[in-house]
Amino acid sequence: MGEQVTGPPLGAPALLFDLDGTLIDSVYQHVLAWQEALTAVGIELSVWKLHRRIGMSGGLFVTALLRETGGVLSPGQIRELNLAHAEAYGRRRDTVRPLPGARELLAALTERGVKWAIATSGLALAARPALDMLGLPADTPLVTRDQVRHAKPDPDLFLAAAERIGVDIGSAIVVGDSIWDLLAARRARALGVGLLAGGYGRDELERAGAYRVYADPADLLAHLDEVGVRGVTDWATDPAGED
Amino acid sequence: MGEQVTGPPLGAPALLFDLDGTLIDSVYQHVLAWQEALTAVGIELSVWKLHRRIGMSGGLFVTALLRETGGVLSPGQIRELNLAHAEAYGRRRDTVRPLPGARELLAALTERGVKWAIATSGLALAARPALDMLGLPADTPLVTRDQVRHAKPDPDLFLAAAERIGVDIGSAIVVGDSIWDLLAARRARALGVGLLAGGYGRDELERAGAYRVYADPADLLAHLDEVGVRGVTDWATDPAGED
Repeated sequence: MGEQVTGPPLGAPALLFDLDGTLIDSVYQHVLAWQEALTAVGIELSVWKLHRRIGMSGGLFVTALLRETGGVLSPGQIRELNLAHAEAYGRRRDTVRPLPGARELLAALTERGVKWAIATSGLALAARPALDMLGLPADTPLVTRDQVRHAKPDPDLFLAAAERIGVDIGSAIVVGDSIWDLLAARRARALGVGLLAGGYGRDELERAGAYRVYADPADLLAHLDEVGVRGVTDWATDPAGED
Repeated sequence: MGEQVTGPPLGAPALLFDLDGTLIDSVYQHVLAWQEALTAVGIELSVWKLHRRIGMSGGLFVTALLRETGGVLSPGQIRELNLAHAEAYGRRRDTVRPLPGARELLAALTERGVKWAIATSGLALAARPALDMLGLPADTPLVTRDQVRHAKPDPDLFLAAAERIGVDIGSAIVVGDSIWDLLAARRARALGVGLLAGGYGRDELERAGAYRVYADPADLLAHLDEVGVRGVTDWATDPAGED
């Protein structure tokens, strides 16, 4: 040992982040925006059921909810519903903040040469303002729902994100707050890490396959070595990178 | 067997219900109302942490949150914060609905002579309009935060509710959506039943001591025999009340 004294360790995994509930604190606003949009077209559903579907593809989300109500909507109506949700969320956007540690975590990864990208079931229209809020440049690797055929829990978003930054999905770590992120991670053969910041319980995330669960980005940053990213948390105390 | 042919079974337990997230679908509105009130006084906390504190006494709620931020507020400031929350919730009240099966569950209990009451950490000011929404008369047994010394997770609210309807707390079943309901139930030596309708996960409720967890009031109504209330779900199919 002791040969490698600086720089990122060989084989360091890349991180693929979900956005809502993972980097920004927007889940509850999305939930009530969906309630507003659905109520406007006469669909009444308990709010906790909307919460548990957030993070899925918008199309799957509506289909899953209609299964509960027994209703049927045309593709045009589903599109309208998605637009109504985007409008209702837009009115709530000024209450959305970065989650604790989100900026610091991304900055620490960048500084140490660990590759990362963001992959969201949301549209580019909604994701772009979030980059500004996080203080990220416009060329941040970002894959949105508009760019893939199927959103979560299909693996497409994370596969596209890994390809975008030129890393092997098999050595990537998906970080997300919802079971849809973790199911998509397993289908993509990536390691999944859960965050409580979206309001799911720890057990729900572990059952969906989370290798490890943290409170929020700040908590993940403090424990990056547990998920296999060396040299970030060690850096201050152990700059030689020894075992 | 076969001796008892009508009326409620002997020793039938009484039910003590929480209100928000248990009978009405108001938790997410309360969560964002708290966020608004706290942000206005410069306290920034992740929304999921507010969610996990909802249902506690308002005083404990603020104290618990301040522990996370390291801040200090005077009793006067805490009172103002509670008023700001009530005002912010009031603006969201028109989106609140009864939870599925809430009216039917209470009506079925009343019809079969099973005693029940409502015990809420909220103020009478907020709880009274909820009775109207549920179609309940003004003389519905209701204990609010103003009427006891300590709110949940202290047992006072449920003890007062049991006394109000003249039942032994030891044979009562507390029904709630939050871990604070279930902790208060255990301290009161009542059986606790959890509902997912407030957005907690099943495991969180079971760990807090839930004897059984159901989705919402409709789901509880369909399974009342599991918690020891006989003669409600049996009534249609087994009017003789035999074992």
